[in-house]
Amino acid sequence: MEGLDNIDNIKAYSFKLLKTDEDTKARLGIIKTSHGTIDTPVFMPVGTRGTVKTMSTLELEELEIQTILCNTYHLYIRPGPELIKELGGLHRFISWKRPILTDSGGYQAFSLGDLKEIREEGIHFQSHLDGASFFLAPEKAIEIQEVFGSDIMMCLDICTPHPSTREETQRSMDITHKWEKRCKNAKMSTGQALFGITQGGMYGDLRRESTQSIVDIGFDGYAIGGLSVGEGKELMCEMIEVSEPYLPVESPRYLMGVGTPEDIIEAVSRGIDMFDCVLPTRNARNGTLFTRGGKLVIKNARFAKDRMPIDERCGCYTCGNYSRAYLRYLYMAGEILALRLNTIHNLFYYMELMKGIRGAVREERFAEFKGDFYRERMTEGAGLR
Amino acid sequence: MEGLDNIDNIKAYSFKLLKTDEDTKARLGIIKTSHGTIDTPVFMPVGTRGTVKTMSTLELEELEIQTILCNTYHLYIRPGPELIKELGGLHRFISWKRPILTDSGGYQAFSLGDLKEIREEGIHFQSHLDGASFFLAPEKAIEIQEVFGSDIMMCLDICTPHPSTREETQRSMDITHKWEKRCKNAKMSTGQALFGITQGGMYGDLRRESTQSIVDIGFDGYAIGGLSVGEGKELMCEMIEVSEPYLPVESPRYLMGVGTPEDIIEAVSRGIDMFDCVLPTRNARNGTLFTRGGKLVIKNARFAKDRMPIDERCGCYTCGNYSRAYLRYLYMAGEILALRLNTIHNLFYYMELMKGIRGAVREERFAEFKGDFYRERMTEGAGLR
Repeated sequence: MEGLDNIDNIKAYSFKLLKTDEDTKARLGIIKTSHGTIDTPVFMPVGTRGTVKTMSTLELEELEIQTILCNTYHLYIRPGPELIKELGGLHRFISWKRPILTDSGGYQAFSLGDLKEIREEGIHFQSHLDGASFFLAPEKAIEIQEVFGSDIMMCLDICTPHPSTREETQRSMDITHKWEKRCKNAKMSTGQALFGITQGGMYGDLRRESTQSIVDIGFDGYAIGGLSVGEGKELMCEMIEVSEPYLPVESPRYLMGVGTPEDIIEAVSRGIDMFDCVLPTRNARNGTLFTRGGKLVIKNARFAKDRMPIDERCGCYTCGNYSRAYLRYLYMAGEILALRLNTIHNLFYYMELMKGIRGAVREERFAEFKGDFYRERMTEGAGLR
Repeated sequence: MEGLDNIDNIKAYSFKLLKTDEDTKARLGIIKTSHGTIDTPVFMPVGTRGTVKTMSTLELEELEIQTILCNTYHLYIRPGPELIKELGGLHRFISWKRPILTDSGGYQAFSLGDLKEIREEGIHFQSHLDGASFFLAPEKAIEIQEVFGSDIMMCLDICTPHPSTREETQRSMDITHKWEKRCKNAKMSTGQALFGITQGGMYGDLRRESTQSIVDIGFDGYAIGGLSVGEGKELMCEMIEVSEPYLPVESPRYLMGVGTPEDIIEAVSRGIDMFDCVLPTRNARNGTLFTRGGKLVIKNARFAKDRMPIDERCGCYTCGNYSRAYLRYLYMAGEILALRLNTIHNLFYYMELMKGIRGAVREERFAEFKGDFYRERMTEGAGLR
């Protein structure tokens, strides 16, 4: 596996930019943490509640997944940081030895919580599980993530909904900047990295202002927040392009909550190093599978007698052992194994995609790789639809 | 792994009795099939619809499971024998290279089917899924199992409910005997074994009569059917004891649908070689875990902060990596991984139990093993309740 050789010698966080593509802004890098290294560009599967749904951590290792994202909101309301602390931290609790990135909890507190209220002090919300009251302030978000012992912590921010007026966007951006400063001040741990998050909605000048403000505070890495919220791919790319020149070259850039394979390729082309998204795992559980030719919906009747694997050229466990006919049958029968086998395939697809991207940047042929990616969709997709 | 060395040289079915315990009737044997060998006494996990629920076939192999049972009823109504034939048989369809035993479908047709009707010609029933009409005759039950390519096929029989009058029991037993003869006559395949099933309800003389009749027809192995239907452990043991002397020593004996660890130990003591039951897998999905000390109900609040594994001395993947606290948390959160980890543990427990039984018979200390088994329940169970 790339870059995992020297785990034992690594004591703290660092990022090294290894290469930048000459034709695009694609970058190759390596993040080091006390739990191991992460080759970038990286896709982080989402382990919402301390488990990447349906998967064991052994399977994640076998898929050569180097890092996962866990959601602070979910783990905050259940089982709670006290229990996780008592059980020896998040890595130990979920039995995952490699790096973990945790978000701040703010996004879910706002999107899932009941009766939520954002004030300058923080976010008051009630758990979507049982209505219990919680309060998430910048200091609290950091405290929880320090208890978890995540390798990369995220600042508390306000993700502006889309569409939002300039005034609303400006207001929540200003609070975000204050909160992130408070996050940095609250941070006690030295072994954990803290990333800032830029906002600014779909206003180019606000994006610029936010990026500069956050970079001025100074963090171990920078996330572009508030994208992939329904604005469309073009506007998303535009906002990345507006922000990118203001992000320091020597820090990793993380596009939160993104995305489709196409989104990832486009964002990598624009200088992004890190991604997370529920898409491969959630789609798997909905029976939608990723292939080089595009999406394959396993429940379609046309696969009922199909003895082919999902993708003939795929090297995953599912494709090596099971036919589309069996996968369709399992899915229609509601068997858990269907969800597992689909998840293994989709995560393998994403890992292969990222490996392909990294290899292409390393060998200075990323633009060609990108062309091939879109060409394969055209030529092979025909057989799936 | 015991006995899996010579798979390639084995072409057809055989059973060899290796040893009989001197103090009890416990036996050690080996079944050979074209898909590999089975060490007896054996427990066969149930792969109801062509999958042992939540498990991949790779995991079953890693658990050293030598054979599984699949339900003909379920596979008959969906996806149907035609599709399984087209996909290359059941082993290939479900991606399981080791032996498969299939039942006849009769039990589920009667217990699950709608508007079922048993006539001497066979069983008319409607699928519990969509009401489609099906007919299961002895010849049909064999034809389907031959299409599946199962290594051990079972005769169609009538499982008498408990309690039943002597008259009802006699009547369904008589039909069963006719059906089994028709099954034997219908059998075309030479590579697949066919087991007969004895009935006779809770009437000792009928049990005797049934056993003699079925042995007279002559099969590759004999199942004791119609037990574990609510009669209680004592009566079950009594019916085994009544039947056993009439079963040929040189053929395997299979107690269908049994059972708990205690049931298995008691039945092994009475000369039984084969078992199947949904208990370890179904209990796992209900959060009930088997340990040397007895059952552990993972959702109990007392495990909320428990950093111990399910069973400290267990060598399974779950116990090697996860605490009771995490397993309880996952279970309460409704995560699929909980069902998987619980299933791995329970199947490992059953496999260890059977390995322990075989080792004890081999080393002529089965009675001692049985004593230890009950003693451990007493001493270690205290810590779980």
